[in-house]
Amino acid sequence: MDQKTTIYDIAKKLDITAATVSRALNNNPKISEVTRKLVLETAAKMNYKQNRLAQSLRSGKSNNVGVIVPRIDSNFFASAIRGIEEELRPEGYHVIICQTLEDENRQAENITTLLNAQVDGILMSISHLSKENDPVIRNVINKNVPLVFFDRKKNMDGVSSVTINDFEAGYLATKNLIEQGCKRIAHLTGDQTLEIYVNRYDGFKKALLDNDLKLNPDYVFQTKSNVEAGRQAIDRLLSLDPPPDGIFSSSDFAALGVIQELQERGIKVPEEFCVFGFGNEPFTRFMELTISSVDQSPLEMGRMAAKVFLEQINNTDNVKIEKKVVLTPELHIRKSSTRIK
Amino acid sequence: MDQKTTIYDIAKKLDITAATVSRALNNNPKISEVTRKLVLETAAKMNYKQNRLAQSLRSGKSNNVGVIVPRIDSNFFASAIRGIEEELRPEGYHVIICQTLEDENRQAENITTLLNAQVDGILMSISHLSKENDPVIRNVINKNVPLVFFDRKKNMDGVSSVTINDFEAGYLATKNLIEQGCKRIAHLTGDQTLEIYVNRYDGFKKALLDNDLKLNPDYVFQTKSNVEAGRQAIDRLLSLDPPPDGIFSSSDFAALGVIQELQERGIKVPEEFCVFGFGNEPFTRFMELTISSVDQSPLEMGRMAAKVFLEQINNTDNVKIEKKVVLTPELHIRKSSTRIK
Repeated sequence: MDQKTTIYDIAKKLDITAATVSRALNNNPKISEVTRKLVLETAAKMNYKQNRLAQSLRSGKSNNVGVIVPRIDSNFFASAIRGIEEELRPEGYHVIICQTLEDENRQAENITTLLNAQVDGILMSISHLSKENDPVIRNVINKNVPLVFFDRKKNMDGVSSVTINDFEAGYLATKNLIEQGCKRIAHLTGDQTLEIYVNRYDGFKKALLDNDLKLNPDYVFQTKSNVEAGRQAIDRLLSLDPPPDGIFSSSDFAALGVIQELQERGIKVPEEFCVFGFGNEPFTRFMELTISSVDQSPLEMGRMAAKVFLEQINNTDNVKIEKKVVLTPELHIRKSSTRIK
Repeated sequence: MDQKTTIYDIAKKLDITAATVSRALNNNPKISEVTRKLVLETAAKMNYKQNRLAQSLRSGKSNNVGVIVPRIDSNFFASAIRGIEEELRPEGYHVIICQTLEDENRQAENITTLLNAQVDGILMSISHLSKENDPVIRNVINKNVPLVFFDRKKNMDGVSSVTINDFEAGYLATKNLIEQGCKRIAHLTGDQTLEIYVNRYDGFKKALLDNDLKLNPDYVFQTKSNVEAGRQAIDRLLSLDPPPDGIFSSSDFAALGVIQELQERGIKVPEEFCVFGFGNEPFTRFMELTISSVDQSPLEMGRMAAKVFLEQINNTDNVKIEKKVVLTPELHIRKSSTRIK
C-alpha cells in the first residue's frame, strides 16, 4: 500500500483545520469560494483521492441502488431491471442486482448485503414469503431507505409498489379460452402466498362464473415455474375423467411443458386442447406453435418503479409518499389458443 | 433519524477508552475476555448497532463479491452467476451483480460502484473493449482486489481466468457441418476485439483448411447476438452467387433468426441448409426444429471462477496466483444440422 494523502496533510499544508478541508471538498456552502478553490487545487496537486465510501458515510449517499429479484434468468425480471437502469442511470444512479432464487434466507441476506453496501434505495420483487410483516423488510423501512416493490409485493405500510392488474390478466386469458370453445378449463397457479398468483386465480374464477362454467377444483393446482412441472401437471390432469380441454398456466415455462407433453401424446394443440401462458417469455413467439401469453410490460414496470424511487429520494418535504401503480396487462393471443381465425 | 449509540457512549458508560471498546467489538486478541464480554453486554443493553460498513473499512472485508456481466438476460451468464453463487455462498460470501450492456462506460462505472461497495473481489466477463490495458481494470489490480475473468477476458498480468476452448468448439461445430455435406459454409462472428470470437473463427478456418474447403471471405461477417441480426445476415448471404449451404453462428440468437428467415423463404433446414449455433440457450432445444449448439458449461465455469477467487483471497502467502483454466466445450448436435442419421 502506498502512503495516501489525507485531509490532515492538506490541512497542514494550508494551515487550516481538517474540518475546513473536508467541508470544502464536500462543497459545504459555509466555505468561501476562495478557500474551496484553494483546497481543491492543493488536493489535486497532492494527488489526494477522496474515499467515496467514507464520503458516502458522511453524506449518507452512495448513488447506488439495489435491485432484488427472485431470479435473473427470466425475461421478465431481466427486462424490468433494464427498465430500472434506463431510468436511473441518467440521474447518476448505479444499479446493483441480487437474486433470491425464491429462498427467504437469501432474500434476507441480500437485503443486509445491499444495506451494508450503503445503497440509497431498494427496488424489489419479493420471493415466496411466509411472514406477513417480514422483520428484515421492516428494517429497510425503519432505516428510512426508500423501498419500492415491483410485480411481487406484500401490502406494507409506507411501501410503494408497481404491479400489473393480474386479476384482469387472468380474467382475459380465461375468457379467450372460453371463446375458443374450451369447456373444461384447468389452471396452474403459483405460490398462493403471493398476491400476483391469487389475483390471477381470482380472475380465472370470475371468468368461469361470468360464462356459466363450473370450477372443478381437481383442475386447479400449484406448480413451479418450469418445463418439467408443466409436464407433470398435464400428466396428472389427463388422468382425470373427464380430462380438461384447455389450460391457463400462470407460467410460460409450465405452459411449454404442457404443450411438449400434449404433442408427445399426439393430442393436437389448439384443436383438441388450448393453452394460455403468462409472462410473454421470448420462446413463446420463437416456437413454431407460438404460445398465447400475457405481457407484463416489464420494461415499463421497471421504469415506473425507478420513477417512484426517484420521487421518494428527491422528496425533501417531510411527508411520506406511498404510491400504488397498477399497469394494464397486454394479451398476445397466438397459435396455442387460436382455433377460430 | 434517532440518536444512535456510539462506541463513545459505551466507553463513557464503562469508563474505558473508545479504542478499547472498538477493539473489543472487533475481537482484537489484545483485549481480555472479561473486558470483551463486558463491552459486548453493555453494547447489547444500549442497543448499539455496529455499522458493518465502517467495520469493513477497518477490517478491509465486506464478504461481498461483485460479478460483472455484459447482460443478465442470457442463459449463459445467468447460469454462470448461479454457479458462482453456489460456490461462494457456503463460504459466507454474498454476490452482487452488475450488467454492462456491452457499454465500456457502464463497465467502468460498474467497477467503481463495486469498489465503492467494498467488494472483496470482482469476477467479470468483459464487454467489448477497445483498450488493451484498460486503466479502470488496472485499478482493480493495483488495489489488490482479487479479479477473475470468466468467458470473455483480456490477457492481463496477474489476472486469472476461466474460459472454454473456443477454438476447439468452432472447429468441431464446423466439422459437423462438413460431415453433413455442407460445402459452402458461412460464419457469423462477434466482435473481433474479443478473444472468444477470434478463437471460434480460427477454429472455423482450421476445420475448413483440414477438409480442403476454401474460405470465402464474403461468407464471413460480424453480427450482433440477436434474432434480427441473424435474419439480416442470412438475407445478405442468400443474395450471393452461389449462396452458402450451411452456417456456423457464434450466437444462438442469430442462428434462430437465420432459421426463421430460411423457413419463411421455404428453404428446408437441414435438408438444403444446415445451421449450428453457440451457447446452448434453452430455446435451442425447445423448438420443434431443435438447433445444434455448443454448450459452454456455464454452471461449471461460474463454479470454477469462484474457486479461483477463493484460492486468491485465502492465499495468505505473499505470492501472486495467476491461474488460467480452460474448460472443454460440449457439442449438442440437433435437428438443424442432422441430415445423416
